[in-house]
Amino acid sequence: MMLATALVFIMHLGFASVEAGFTQSKNTVNILFKNTLTPVLGIVTYALLGFALMYPGEFNGILGFSMDSWDTIWFNSGSADVSEGYADGGYTFWTDFLYQAMFAATAATIVSGAVAERIKLGAYLTFTLFYVGIVYPIIGSWKWGGGFLDELGFVDFAGSTIVHSVGGWGALVGIWLLGPRIGKYNNGSTSEISGSSVPLATIGVFLLWLGWFGFNGGSVLSADPGLTSLVLVTTTLGACGGAIGGHFTSMIVMKRIDFGMVLNGILAGLVGVTAGADIITPFEALFIGGVAGVLVVFSVLLLDKLKLDDCVGAVSVHLTCGIWGTLATGIFGEGASFMSQLYGVLACGAAAIVGSFIIFYILKVTMGLRVSEEAEKHGLDSEEHGIRGYTILIED
Amino acid sequence: MMLATALVFIMHLGFASVEAGFTQSKNTVNILFKNTLTPVLGIVTYALLGFALMYPGEFNGILGFSMDSWDTIWFNSGSADVSEGYADGGYTFWTDFLYQAMFAATAATIVSGAVAERIKLGAYLTFTLFYVGIVYPIIGSWKWGGGFLDELGFVDFAGSTIVHSVGGWGALVGIWLLGPRIGKYNNGSTSEISGSSVPLATIGVFLLWLGWFGFNGGSVLSADPGLTSLVLVTTTLGACGGAIGGHFTSMIVMKRIDFGMVLNGILAGLVGVTAGADIITPFEALFIGGVAGVLVVFSVLLLDKLKLDDCVGAVSVHLTCGIWGTLATGIFGEGASFMSQLYGVLACGAAAIVGSFIIFYILKVTMGLRVSEEAEKHGLDSEEHGIRGYTILIED
Amino acid sequence: MMLATALVFIMHLGFASVEAGFTQSKNTVNILFKNTLTPVLGIVTYALLGFALMYPGEFNGILGFSMDSWDTIWFNSGSADVSEGYADGGYTFWTDFLYQAMFAATAATIVSGAVAERIKLGAYLTFTLFYVGIVYPIIGSWKWGGGFLDELGFVDFAGSTIVHSVGGWGALVGIWLLGPRIGKYNNGSTSEISGSSVPLATIGVFLLWLGWFGFNGGSVLSADPGLTSLVLVTTTLGACGGAIGGHFTSMIVMKRIDFGMVLNGILAGLVGVTAGADIITPFEALFIGGVAGVLVVFSVLLLDKLKLDDCVGAVSVHLTCGIWGTLATGIFGEGASFMSQLYGVLACGAAAIVGSFIIFYILKVTMGLRVSEEAEKHGLDSEEHGIRGYTILIED
Repeated sequence: MMLATALVFIMHLGFASVEAGFTQSKNTVNILFKNTLTPVLGIVTYALLGFALMYPGEFNGILGFSMDSWDTIWFNSGSADVSEGYADGGYTFWTDFLYQAMFAATAATIVSGAVAERIKLGAYLTFTLFYVGIVYPIIGSWKWGGGFLDELGFVDFAGSTIVHSVGGWGALVGIWLLGPRIGKYNNGSTSEISGSSVPLATIGVFLLWLGWFGFNGGSVLSADPGLTSLVLVTTTLGACGGAIGGHFTSMIVMKRIDFGMVLNGILAGLVGVTAGADIITPFEALFIGGVAGVLVVFSVLLLDKLKLDDCVGAVSVHLTCGIWGTLATGIFGEGASFMSQLYGVLACGAAAIVGSFIIFYILKVTMGLRVSEEAEKHGLDSEEHGIRGYTILIED
Repeated sequence: MMLATALVFIMHLGFASVEAGFTQSKNTVNILFKNTLTPVLGIVTYALLGFALMYPGEFNGILGFSMDSWDTIWFNSGSADVSEGYADGGYTFWTDFLYQAMFAATAATIVSGAVAERIKLGAYLTFTLFYVGIVYPIIGSWKWGGGFLDELGFVDFAGSTIVHSVGGWGALVGIWLLGPRIGKYNNGSTSEISGSSVPLATIGVFLLWLGWFGFNGGSVLSADPGLTSLVLVTTTLGACGGAIGGHFTSMIVMKRIDFGMVLNGILAGLVGVTAGADIITPFEALFIGGVAGVLVVFSVLLLDKLKLDDCVGAVSVHLTCGIWGTLATGIFGEGASFMSQLYGVLACGAAAIVGSFIIFYILKVTMGLRVSEEAEKHGLDSEEHGIRGYTILIED
Repeated sequence: MMLATALVFIMHLGFASVEAGFTQSKNTVNILFKNTLTPVLGIVTYALLGFALMYPGEFNGILGFSMDSWDTIWFNSGSADVSEGYADGGYTFWTDFLYQAMFAATAATIVSGAVAERIKLGAYLTFTLFYVGIVYPIIGSWKWGGGFLDELGFVDFAGSTIVHSVGGWGALVGIWLLGPRIGKYNNGSTSEISGSSVPLATIGVFLLWLGWFGFNGGSVLSADPGLTSLVLVTTTLGACGGAIGGHFTSMIVMKRIDFGMVLNGILAGLVGVTAGADIITPFEALFIGGVAGVLVVFSVLLLDKLKLDDCVGAVSVHLTCGIWGTLATGIFGEGASFMSQLYGVLACGAAAIVGSFIIFYILKVTMGLRVSEEAEKHGLDSEEHGIRGYTILIED
């Protein structure tokens, strides 16, 4: 479990790399800054509010808060008793907290990539505080804290819905309220805005895949090696399916070898198998991942048609495939029911939309969401940070 | 073992980084695409064919297929029984499969770097399917599946021969059939073609070194901490020896501080100690690695003399030093015999040459191996992918 | 523990990335070369001398050498007996050696970044041999080998003083003897010399944070999951505190969003909680890290005022915050005394200053420390290595 925590931590570097690689070099420092402060603020906020909201112990199924665990997080030191008998000895209180905190920060990071290249730094960071500190943990408590979705039999192994679609809904609301980047949609056509570094994006996707071993493997929440290792296999085959699905779909639909769609296909496949990684066969994992790889391509095209400008494809990867994965678990997973899954998707979706809308809307009417046109054109790095992402001299 | 699997997975990012760093920026997307699809296709193919070929259970020692494990891989889900008593409880069926699948994909990745910058994408990917799905696992079954080499007392702890030299022979056959890059050898002189990013190559080598802890450490295939930790020490000292050997040899022979030879020296040293990491002393590991570092420099120079154009030095690292490491195990390793080692090198080498030649030759006469002269000059990125690896604006 | 060793290994990639990212592209190969050879030479030297000096068994408390462990390191192979009963079975002899060797090389790497862009390669590498082989292990033996500081009750959990401040003092002495880079301080004003790649620096900081989980987590030196997991929490919150402290301090003092100070703040926070990570509460960790983040900004400004040119802020991160963390442990840590902590800081500091001064001074008067003015202006890559760090063609 501690290893899993370290692997989930490395996902934050993965997100930072993917997002910096897929966006323009004039905004590189800005996006790295956001992706560095996201886990920092996310973890602190989760310690301040989130963990106690998400795991409230006995509660009414919708909202609760554990004063006890809040107190322990902040003021207990090396005394072993807080972990004595915790989780039947499967892992410790501290591991549980840190693992969940790393997860929580993920939900905000998903938003970060979608809204990049035009959101105000302060607006994004404030959104992160409230989304990770309040919205995400309340939704999470409905399932993982033993709330009403858990009682209804909703199945979400490692968070296709709870983490990924919650992040994805936030991203969708964000890009809708922000509007597209200048020049993205002109006279009915969509222009491709090239990312700055394909190697950086590739590094990011591999690190996310690696981190997913912790994300899904750790969610077995015990030392059952048979089940944990099966989960690693289904996770891997989901990623492989997504890559293959994304590759062939973009070959057919877009008539070119689109490496970006392979990379997003891998992430789509991973999101897709996250809901049911422990109750599907490897063959089903390959299939679910493959469908996710197909869906991600069409989702990207659809969003562009709707003039919803998602810089890195985060909504398509995390929301579209998060929903697909959750429903697929209802179809293929042993012991899961389609209707419970659908109900969970709708309940969490409604809450995430309302929560993220309220936060973004208040920010919009108070501090404003969007940087000035001039700042956007010049790039956020020179505007807000005064330095450039790359200062590479190419001598002749 | 699951940790080891994650570490071997990260080797694929290591290979991607090394190969993209050592090749030209006009082919960066192409090489990253290949190195991303290599584990994807490799793992799926290994699940489809490889694992059942490599571990056939009782068989004639040369060729076998386990229908049982094929069935389990694809259609079993979380039921624990497939791992009950597996490997005396040392690890599970799933871990075994995934770990071996990660290994298998490595053999193809080795080829990828050597043949870069001029091979057709489709040709390379088709080669990967057959090499990982059929050639590698059949050779592997001779030793690790309990075949005739195992009965002869051939020792290959983590695959200096089975993995690295098999990949290296494939690379050698590939670059021979492909011919050198345009402009590499002109009027009897060899021109240096600069890699695009030394930092990326360095990141790759460190990740490979890290992954080797899993590659070698995991090959102890049990939880014997004494032996596993000794293996980590011999692995590390092999890498150190290789770096030192590569550095001083290039200083003396090439009269300059050649960082590429240090990086390749590290990989050479790692390959060198892979065959006998569990039965040599740390001092012997440093020595074997040091000799590997010397050999890699001379091997690179020799290949250039023969006009065999290996973009990243893969043949020198994996084949030359794979052979050296296997033979060195016969000299230094407790309980290994030189003649058995030599016999294993020859048998696996013959099979790898024949196997890779057949695949590459059929591809050559059917779809063709090599891109057009124009595509090679323009770079494969703009030709096949339509995007560039780096889009970094350097404002003044 | 083996996992922790792998994580500490990855810190070397972290340092390489941070230092290459924060320095100019004309010196990229040079700094990567140094940071690759540092662990290589550091590990070999530590095996040759360091480990036996640092853990001499029974000794006079100041200087000792264990012939026994020297012999084992070099000439023992897979026989299990060297680990039988070692460390009460908590970890093996080999793990202990390798883990400590990875630590030791860290102390030299800290120096590498500070003195970059103008030190002679040979001078730096020779310094590393003596500092890792002799100075560091002797100082280390005073506490971790059971020497006089240990008997005095000095507390240094994972080396705020023993590792980080020892490295930091070496860096300070180095930059003082070397003098600033040409053009850094002109007519009383300090010019900002931009680093080549912010993404590379960010990757480095995340990898260091990850590695710190091994650095601190592994220092529990046992499988006590309660304490280990608490240490991961205090480590993480220290990093978060440092980021927040560095961010707000640079906002207030320098009136801009300085991402470099956030990155260095994270490292500062990690160094700050390293001395007492196992005996402080999470709240105290956040506070200690936060103060470290404040201190690192003022320390950077102070060094610039004194015309001590530290290319990457290594002295501010490792020395200033190493001292702060050690003293803070005396204030907040259960069972630690402020006076013992102060005494440890002074004793280790005096030894590190004297040791590093002697080595650097002898090198200065013999081979010389500094490259020629011409080489410095042209960049060390073209001068000493003949290649460039980046060869990226940007076609129009």
